[in-house]
Amino acid sequence: MNRPVRSRAKKPSIQDVATLAGVSRTTVSFVVNNAPDASISESTRDRVWAAVKELNWRPNAMARGLSSRRSHTIGFISDGFVSDESVATPLAGKTIQGVQDAALATDKMVLVCNTGRNRKVERDTIEMLLERQVEGIIYATMFHHSVVPPAAISQVPVVLLDCFADDRSLPSVVPDEVQGARTATEVLLQKGHRRIGFINNVDPMPAQTERLEGYKQALASHDVPFESRLVQYCTTTHTSGGYRCAMSLMQLSEPPTALFCFNDLTAMGVYDALRQLGLSIPEDVAIIGFDNLELIAAQLYPPLSTMELPHYQMGQWAVQYLIEHADNPHDDKPVQHKIPCPFIARSSA
Amino acid sequence: MNRPVRSRAKKPSIQDVATLAGVSRTTVSFVVNNAPDASISESTRDRVWAAVKELNWRPNAMARGLSSRRSHTIGFISDGFVSDESVATPLAGKTIQGVQDAALATDKMVLVCNTGRNRKVERDTIEMLLERQVEGIIYATMFHHSVVPPAAISQVPVVLLDCFADDRSLPSVVPDEVQGARTATEVLLQKGHRRIGFINNVDPMPAQTERLEGYKQALASHDVPFESRLVQYCTTTHTSGGYRCAMSLMQLSEPPTALFCFNDLTAMGVYDALRQLGLSIPEDVAIIGFDNLELIAAQLYPPLSTMELPHYQMGQWAVQYLIEHADNPHDDKPVQHKIPCPFIARSSA
Repeated sequence: MNRPVRSRAKKPSIQDVATLAGVSRTTVSFVVNNAPDASISESTRDRVWAAVKELNWRPNAMARGLSSRRSHTIGFISDGFVSDESVATPLAGKTIQGVQDAALATDKMVLVCNTGRNRKVERDTIEMLLERQVEGIIYATMFHHSVVPPAAISQVPVVLLDCFADDRSLPSVVPDEVQGARTATEVLLQKGHRRIGFINNVDPMPAQTERLEGYKQALASHDVPFESRLVQYCTTTHTSGGYRCAMSLMQLSEPPTALFCFNDLTAMGVYDALRQLGLSIPEDVAIIGFDNLELIAAQLYPPLSTMELPHYQMGQWAVQYLIEHADNPHDDKPVQHKIPCPFIARSSA
Repeated sequence: MNRPVRSRAKKPSIQDVATLAGVSRTTVSFVVNNAPDASISESTRDRVWAAVKELNWRPNAMARGLSSRRSHTIGFISDGFVSDESVATPLAGKTIQGVQDAALATDKMVLVCNTGRNRKVERDTIEMLLERQVEGIIYATMFHHSVVPPAAISQVPVVLLDCFADDRSLPSVVPDEVQGARTATEVLLQKGHRRIGFINNVDPMPAQTERLEGYKQALASHDVPFESRLVQYCTTTHTSGGYRCAMSLMQLSEPPTALFCFNDLTAMGVYDALRQLGLSIPEDVAIIGFDNLELIAAQLYPPLSTMELPHYQMGQWAVQYLIEHADNPHDDKPVQHKIPCPFIARSSA
């Protein structure tokens, strides 16, 4: 059988389907969109679908979006997949993966935009997403902190991811920092450690204060007194901070036997310091990190035990929340949902 | 002045604009879409735009897409942001960033989808992109290899990114592997090294064969004979491969004074081996990696000199190619465009 070769310019139209099925374009549209009020006989429906199949016609999703008032598309705005220093962050990939898996499960797609923390780009991007009639917007940041998104964002349901509005006017999903630090410290306590150092981040942020709180909670629950000199602060965006803090902590008259590190990069620097001091991990000093950047944690020797930042799960939760609240965005008071940070056991503690 | 508060359910419609401007909906549509054939007076145009502004009306992009036959949207399909082992790859973030920056520069947005190398998800995703009338699709993989995308993808302009069709039926953009390895080896040669080891990947792939070729080209250009025992092969997805190869190479009767490593992870394992052997980097052995994963390369001590995989640039190039070929996709024979891998000088060579 010879079939005419159709060039791209001549894709079948709804009119072609209507002609082949012997019905009107409106009837084709009603059938394909499952319009609830249209009384169309079963045999007519069958003819339309046969014509759709015969012509391999693809209903225009934009047209369907117009009629059903749904674009089946979610907007994802991030302040960066790549940091100021052009460092690509693998956590952004985990977030997008979680967002996309949850979206695809309900046949939705995700428009992804990175605004690089530029307010004008942010406003323009939100405008472009609204023009495309997104059903909701996920507004994500590279680390847990408070934000003030452009007001226009509130025209559709919104979830803030790894960030929050100070006035709690928008729902948000963030890691449970207190639990993460408490769990890490408890793991070390349960292994018998009583002198546990904590290398914390020097800049004020929720992770800094809440992880200190979790560390203190765990110590208290095991009747271990808090000693402020066991907590040191450094810049945690480079290994050198962890290196210097570990060197300093190990010079205490009673040095710690375990170190809880603000993140995996800090732990990587601690590894260098302990190696230089001739100390073994975990025999002489046990180490637990934070983030679970596999590229570091699984590759260090010995592999680093760490607390995972739940980026995949935050992405999933955000989409599910948007879908549940798409029609009734103001039903509930905005929540701040905290997702636990699981302990990833490797060999350093 | 009191203005009525509009709830989300009552966004202004095109009818509201038409009523306020005293024109028909069609006239509003013609004005807003800059319809070329419509003869509408300047004063009418002014009234329409004044009404659009007064009501803060946002033209529906889906409707505009229908009339202009442009969705201003590009599809980006990747086989993974996160590997089989749930390892988040920062390179995917760089690619998406390049894609998005180039798209935004022409007011386009990007629908991002990860298919996880599942053929059914891949076909469904392409279908969803086509339904949304994307202007083109970028089909990206996590490492440079040959692919057979689903045939449906060819209904719109396509660029393969970090992959290629064996029959060269589709345009593609890939890293220049030969140049990358040649440059790395030349950097070492220019520093006076004559015994340069190459720790290559064990699995056959373009990066394996083409980088070996580049390594050989550089040696030949400096009249240094190729010695096969200076090339070792290992699994490069974990540091342990590089560790073992370095141990083996340093036990040669005439060990190398420099090592070119297939990737940064391999180099990280080499660091461990040399440290254990009491050798200094770069004084005893110079090291150059590949990838430029900053999370490793910039954080190792000493910081790792490496060749950058041009993921950001590949993303940009792909979008620009799609835009240039959107209207005339078959004008040219499909190209395979190679993007150079720049040398990132740090302290290890």
